[in-house]
Amino acid sequence: MVLGESHLSLVAGETGGLVYRGYDIRELAGRASYEGVVHLLWHGEAPATDPPAELARAIAARRALPDGVVRVVDALAPELPPLEALRTGLSALGDGTYPYPPTIEQGIDLVARTPTVLARHVRRARGEPPVEPRPALGQVANFLWMLTGRAPEPERVRALETYFVLLADHGMNASTFALRIVISTQSDLFSAATAALGALKGPAHGGAPARVSAMLDAVGSPERAPDWIRAQLDQKARLFGFGHRAYKAEDPRGLLLHDVARRVADPRRLELAEAVERAGVEELRRRKPNERLYANVEFYSAVVLEAVGLPPELFTPTFAVARTAGWVAHSLEQAASNRLIRPDVRYVGPPPGRRWPNLPAP
Amino acid sequence: MVLGESHLSLVAGETGGLVYRGYDIRELAGRASYEGVVHLLWHGEAPATDPPAELARAIAARRALPDGVVRVVDALAPELPPLEALRTGLSALGDGTYPYPPTIEQGIDLVARTPTVLARHVRRARGEPPVEPRPALGQVANFLWMLTGRAPEPERVRALETYFVLLADHGMNASTFALRIVISTQSDLFSAATAALGALKGPAHGGAPARVSAMLDAVGSPERAPDWIRAQLDQKARLFGFGHRAYKAEDPRGLLLHDVARRVADPRRLELAEAVERAGVEELRRRKPNERLYANVEFYSAVVLEAVGLPPELFTPTFAVARTAGWVAHSLEQAASNRLIRPDVRYVGPPPGRRWPNLPAP
Repeated sequence: MVLGESHLSLVAGETGGLVYRGYDIRELAGRASYEGVVHLLWHGEAPATDPPAELARAIAARRALPDGVVRVVDALAPELPPLEALRTGLSALGDGTYPYPPTIEQGIDLVARTPTVLARHVRRARGEPPVEPRPALGQVANFLWMLTGRAPEPERVRALETYFVLLADHGMNASTFALRIVISTQSDLFSAATAALGALKGPAHGGAPARVSAMLDAVGSPERAPDWIRAQLDQKARLFGFGHRAYKAEDPRGLLLHDVARRVADPRRLELAEAVERAGVEELRRRKPNERLYANVEFYSAVVLEAVGLPPELFTPTFAVARTAGWVAHSLEQAASNRLIRPDVRYVGPPPGRRWPNLPAP
Repeated sequence: MVLGESHLSLVAGETGGLVYRGYDIRELAGRASYEGVVHLLWHGEAPATDPPAELARAIAARRALPDGVVRVVDALAPELPPLEALRTGLSALGDGTYPYPPTIEQGIDLVARTPTVLARHVRRARGEPPVEPRPALGQVANFLWMLTGRAPEPERVRALETYFVLLADHGMNASTFALRIVISTQSDLFSAATAALGALKGPAHGGAPARVSAMLDAVGSPERAPDWIRAQLDQKARLFGFGHRAYKAEDPRGLLLHDVARRVADPRRLELAEAVERAGVEELRRRKPNERLYANVEFYSAVVLEAVGLPPELFTPTFAVARTAGWVAHSLEQAASNRLIRPDVRYVGPPPGRRWPNLPAP
């Protein structure tokens, strides 16, 4: 099903490419800042400096949460899973002061405040006081700062920045599509982002990388990988972190995150992951020779996010934080030439003409 | 764009018909209870008694909000618009205890608690204490009870029950589509319903009926209707309450709600609405002779909901309360043979190969 056109990103599924506005992600990974990619996605052009001074300052200035949002986030049960908390927090950010159509200014608020909501809840869950954002830090460093209250190591910031750049947008996936449908009704940006987050949560979309970590833990050591993978597939259990609807080649984000993992991951964890990847790809090839199944973005995402120090329950919320860049870009693009997205379905229920019986009241 | 099949409802746009599982809404309006239609949509068959005793009891038993949800709703700013409050409240209802796939039991919680969240916030906004749900009342009567704290007049309950029956489902509209996309990722029912509500909020979908009331107020008297309508259209202003993407004939829900309005609306308000409808249809026909534009469901929804005693800011939230029946039905249907909904788009941005410049840091 092809649904319209987009200027934002090209997912070249057959060859394994991903391009933002003409820039291959291989060109951007490790070089462009997250704010630089936000600028690229929203404005269509590389910024004059990187990070783009004006945009980075504007985002940094908007990170603090309005009092009304603080009250809602602090009313959440501390044990609420972070993704549920983030969904309610995103909805609370939409406080009725963001009219349709979405604007860059509204997008700045969404990008700036999503990590603040998440970090606040995560710290509450740990019984720790919130950490105020630091305007001097970029989005990625500040995210780690707000989570930990410690100045993050540059190596970790760099690794997570590459992750943010690689996950910033990805064509018309399920969360982005849900977001564009919401904008197509002329509803607001925060309603749309809340919808997108709900879709991202599903394990068939963004909800799987935490399960990759659990899988690596379950395998335990590299030499056990082939047997473990075979046993899983024999039981018809799903392998998380393999295969992607859009890619019939290696996921370019996975390859680049594998490079990042080589730099920052614990060598034994990396060795384990590579053994599981190898065993998974080989066994899948043996069983489904006509499908081209590779490790997907979630596989090495898990390894990188672990190495950065994030716990598995924050993997999908962190994906969401990075993806706010693309959600805003798609909202702006949808609103620019808006038309209600309303597909038809074929009705296959009983034919009309049934008679509601004269039912007795109970 | 035709997207798959559904057993739930048939929107016959050319002839102006709406059928739930083989039952024309003309057969159901004023006869079936809301709970009876919930049963029909979820189970595919008319219940044995109407209202269906077991389902009605199960819903009535689940109306009270869990403490965690009460805390979130009571943390919302009282001045928050009810639709924003309901979106955050729906998200809060999804407290991580509703795993995929959606079930009838989960659907009962969604249908039972959505009105409780809304009524609690509305009363807080008015500075009034919450009203506990009454298990002896049906969904519609209990909704009015929780809003007002007074036993509702049977005539009003009947009018609002017909509204609920007519708005319970409507094929694959934008909110339902957003909901099915969220379910297609194997995310949960409350994430999906929150997404749907965000879409329903848009004035191109469910967000317009309050503007119909404002329009009737602005026109003021029946004899002013033709001039007022002409002036609006001369200014290229949008007429709310006219035209529908799906219908090229009169919206069957509008016709049935017109009947309800004849019974319950203030005669002067009804006369005004009919004059505006007549003037709108005539003037639109004169200006766009090739389009068949009629008053849509929102036009007489506004008149009926006014007559029931609801203020305009509750029109769209009330629509959402009624539509939870359909949202649950579509979630169940989507999950029953689930496949990720992920459309493609044509990339029309710059061709790949741009070089990220050696940008100076600011």
